Amino acid sequence: MNGAHALLETLMESGIEVCFSNPGTSEMHLVTAIGKTDNVRSILCLFEGVVSGAADGYARLSGKPAITLLHLGPGYANSMANLHNARRARSAIVNIVGDHAVWHHQHDAPLTSDVEAHVKIHSHWYKFTDSAEDLSMAGAEAVSASLSGAGRIATLVVPANHAWESATKSYDRIKPEPLSEVPISTLDSCTKLLNNGRKTAFVLGGRALHEDTLELAGRISESTGVTLLGETFPARLQRGAGRVPVARVPYFAEQAIDFLAEFEQLILIGAPAPVAFFAYPGVSSTLFPDNCMVSSLAMPDEDILQALTDLTERIGAPNTFTAQPAAKHKVSSDELTPTTVGQIVSLRIPENTILVDEGISSGLELFVQTQNAPKHDWLAITGGSIGYGLPVCLGASIACPDRKVVGLQADGSAMYTVQALWSMAREKTDVTIVLLNNSSYNILNVELHRTRAGEPTEKTLSMLDLSNPTIDWVKIAQGMGVSANTVNTVAEFDHEFSRAMDTHGPHLIEVILEQQIGAAIKR
Amino acid sequence: MNGAHALLETLMESGIEVCFSNPGTSEMHLVTAIGKTDNVRSILCLFEGVVSGAADGYARLSGKPAITLLHLGPGYANSMANLHNARRARSAIVNIVGDHAVWHHQHDAPLTSDVEAHVKIHSHWYKFTDSAEDLSMAGAEAVSASLSGAGRIATLVVPANHAWESATKSYDRIKPEPLSEVPISTLDSCTKLLNNGRKTAFVLGGRALHEDTLELAGRISESTGVTLLGETFPARLQRGAGRVPVARVPYFAEQAIDFLAEFEQLILIGAPAPVAFFAYPGVSSTLFPDNCMVSSLAMPDEDILQALTDLTERIGAPNTFTAQPAAKHKVSSDELTPTTVGQIVSLRIPENTILVDEGISSGLELFVQTQNAPKHDWLAITGGSIGYGLPVCLGASIACPDRKVVGLQADGSAMYTVQALWSMAREKTDVTIVLLNNSSYNILNVELHRTRAGEPTEKTLSMLDLSNPTIDWVKIAQGMGVSANTVNTVAEFDHEFSRAMDTHGPHLIEVILEQQIGAAIKR
Repeated sequence: MNGAHALLETLMESGIEVCFSNPGTSEMHLVTAIGKTDNVRSILCLFEGVVSGAADGYARLSGKPAITLLHLGPGYANSMANLHNARRARSAIVNIVGDHAVWHHQHDAPLTSDVEAHVKIHSHWYKFTDSAEDLSMAGAEAVSASLSGAGRIATLVVPANHAWESATKSYDRIKPEPLSEVPISTLDSCTKLLNNGRKTAFVLGGRALHEDTLELAGRISESTGVTLLGETFPARLQRGAGRVPVARVPYFAEQAIDFLAEFEQLILIGAPAPVAFFAYPGVSSTLFPDNCMVSSLAMPDEDILQALTDLTERIGAPNTFTAQPAAKHKVSSDELTPTTVGQIVSLRIPENTILVDEGISSGLELFVQTQNAPKHDWLAITGGSIGYGLPVCLGASIACPDRKVVGLQADGSAMYTVQALWSMAREKTDVTIVLLNNSSYNILNVELHRTRAGEPTEKTLSMLDLSNPTIDWVKIAQGMGVSANTVNTVAEFDHEFSRAMDTHGPHLIEVILEQQIGAAIKR
Repeated sequence: MNGAHALLETLMESGIEVCFSNPGTSEMHLVTAIGKTDNVRSILCLFEGVVSGAADGYARLSGKPAITLLHLGPGYANSMANLHNARRARSAIVNIVGDHAVWHHQHDAPLTSDVEAHVKIHSHWYKFTDSAEDLSMAGAEAVSASLSGAGRIATLVVPANHAWESATKSYDRIKPEPLSEVPISTLDSCTKLLNNGRKTAFVLGGRALHEDTLELAGRISESTGVTLLGETFPARLQRGAGRVPVARVPYFAEQAIDFLAEFEQLILIGAPAPVAFFAYPGVSSTLFPDNCMVSSLAMPDEDILQALTDLTERIGAPNTFTAQPAAKHKVSSDELTPTTVGQIVSLRIPENTILVDEGISSGLELFVQTQNAPKHDWLAITGGSIGYGLPVCLGASIACPDRKVVGLQADGSAMYTVQALWSMAREKTDVTIVLLNNSSYNILNVELHRTRAGEPTEKTLSMLDLSNPTIDWVKIAQGMGVSANTVNTVAEFDHEFSRAMDTHGPHLIEVILEQQIGAAIKR
């Protein structure tokens, strides 16, 4: 058995079932090892940002790590932007990075780089093996590290010669570091806070936004009147009709400051204190009032489910909560806008759909319009690094092949990792992409105004404009093997989206929106 | 004047004329400043890997830096793979990275990351400004740093508040650090080496591969019989009919070892000693014989032109050299292969064409077939990081709008930074892409065999196969506004390529090659 096989055997025993890969020469022994087993599904991606984004989507839905297969420093570099998002999502990922053979480094061959400097940026845990015999233990450690706490990024760098040299599978699964318990003193003080008469909100994030924890929060709200807020960009928010709704902290700082102005007390549960996405001249970076007390019930790496269970018991919360009512089933206008698109999505998605939002400027309205859709998971751009949407759709669909995945995608953002479409086609994933084409980095037209950068010239605006040439998303999707069509009216969108909901397999619907530059600048 | 304007004014005075950008909110003041001048051409790219690759191509042809505009850590991360290539090409680049306002970092907003850890990986020089008033000096320093030696990567990180706060343009152009002189003792010893009777080769790289330096090397060869070798993946090799030819060190280690076996002495001129691209079981990483003496005339940051001029004088080389004869103007077969494609390219390109090779497995043959084409520049993948080709075509064409650029591109590699096509269309660049579609990571099928990873299963091969679904490059190009067509025969390719040579503007020709997996495995 060589090192690659010893590593793979240990990874499989540790629970690895899926590999997202963009391999190169240094990974050939790992590819060969994977080729010999039926127990790891290997998904080829044509760019490393798709690899890492797909692993993020897979982890968000399955709670388990996939392995990635990446090629030296530059291959890892291409995966970094989506690892940034995955880290913020607390997704469990095990990166396997092939490196030059140990003795080859001294020669500074073209692909040589400082791999450690790359991997330590986003990896909670990383290791370079010292010999082929290390690989079994390192594989078990990597999976264990990835599953520790709420979920982590573990990166194992494998010199090519360790993959091909002789080794044994000497390690079994290693138990991950469990979630920490919330101290009794914290539960005591939060119980008191809920009874001190201040106007209070929970700020819920991460694991606190799943159905079970939201029910507990809903019961506490029923008993104490605490308001339930959700972080702006959740990794996985379980919402829709019948579930406990949360009010999302607005994206725009000015709106968020108004929104939070009434609260005298915030209790953080798996979320950080609300801060602005960007700083703006003359606008506070913290979004809550100066006199607002901020406390924490549970940090992301603490046992949020247990903490909320305990708190519910302490305050004697009732077994009831106010659930989101179902959709009122109507479309408010004949104009094809993010509002009407959101309404139709809300009407047509089946229960348990996974909605992946990278609609950017359109996404804010899509969130509002889908709040009373059938129950679904809402995945957001946790780290703000554009290009997460299509890869996360791919990974979510691999994790949940029996659920419909709907990607709510903008034109600008979809382009960053457009290669994901090919893997969706190859793997016959059940993903519908709603591509909202406004031929613009529209959010930047809004931000241009908000940052008070001064009156834009035509040249300034052209730097944020995608209309010259207009991107034809139907051709791009078809070019990668995904069926696609364009819609220009509400009726056409309703027809095509309904059909996509009734049909298995990847499909892209390009929704032509009017350019919104004018509207944005006038704000 | 705000910091963004002060920076831009200083950059312009330092000679900056072009900005490749993929901006975000933190860069809005820089975008606004650029929007107010006609003296910096701003080229929007839809992915940061296109930005950095285009800046590389621009620098290789113009010898000058463009600025890039990148958005925080993740935006920079997306640019890193092509910065790796640019660093190996010794391209001068000035990265401008917008960062959060200084006070915003403490809040750990979603896009916060360790920007310094990113930028120091590939930047020879980097700086974070301490105030808006720093920006003018930092801009001048960055351009100076980028132009120092043979060419460097300089990265200036600009916190958003420095861009919008008040500043003055206080600095003028700063003189870059010049090339070092080659010591007389080195010239002495190389003169002796050329007369010691050993079988000798020059290994030429970087600046030594331009027309003027090659002529000097050719004259020395004429006088001494020294063989002229070129590094495998040059940043810019000036070659073709009438120029001094060099024999390229083969890519495959086994072939390179055979090729170099006859030499008793190598003299390095702007190139490293030949080493294998990857390590392989049982194959040496160094490619020259054990008893071969390796010396250096000039390092890349030394004045290669001067050193070769001096050496020519010392040995009293004649004023003559053996030039590459012109093409024999024929196509050897009716089969559409890299050989016949190369022959037609060789026949049809106009003088001074810029050939950008990312043909990967096909590229080796394309190099051979174009050696006696009309004189042209040949650009290669200096750092081995895939996805350099299309962006470098874009940047080269911006640098040289009056020259034809031909991208010799493989299907697998083109996908990494496919977004470059859109910028080519928008800027109406005169680029013809020859897309050699073999529906495969064909090179990896070869490497699979060479790494002796064992007999591949069907599943192993599927991890290197791009045929399911087959990528339709015509649709992808058209989707991004680039005209395109497919050819299946030699006659069709000749017709379409000839037409492209006679027509201005971007065009893609998809050349359908047979899959070569079988052939590769049989080797």
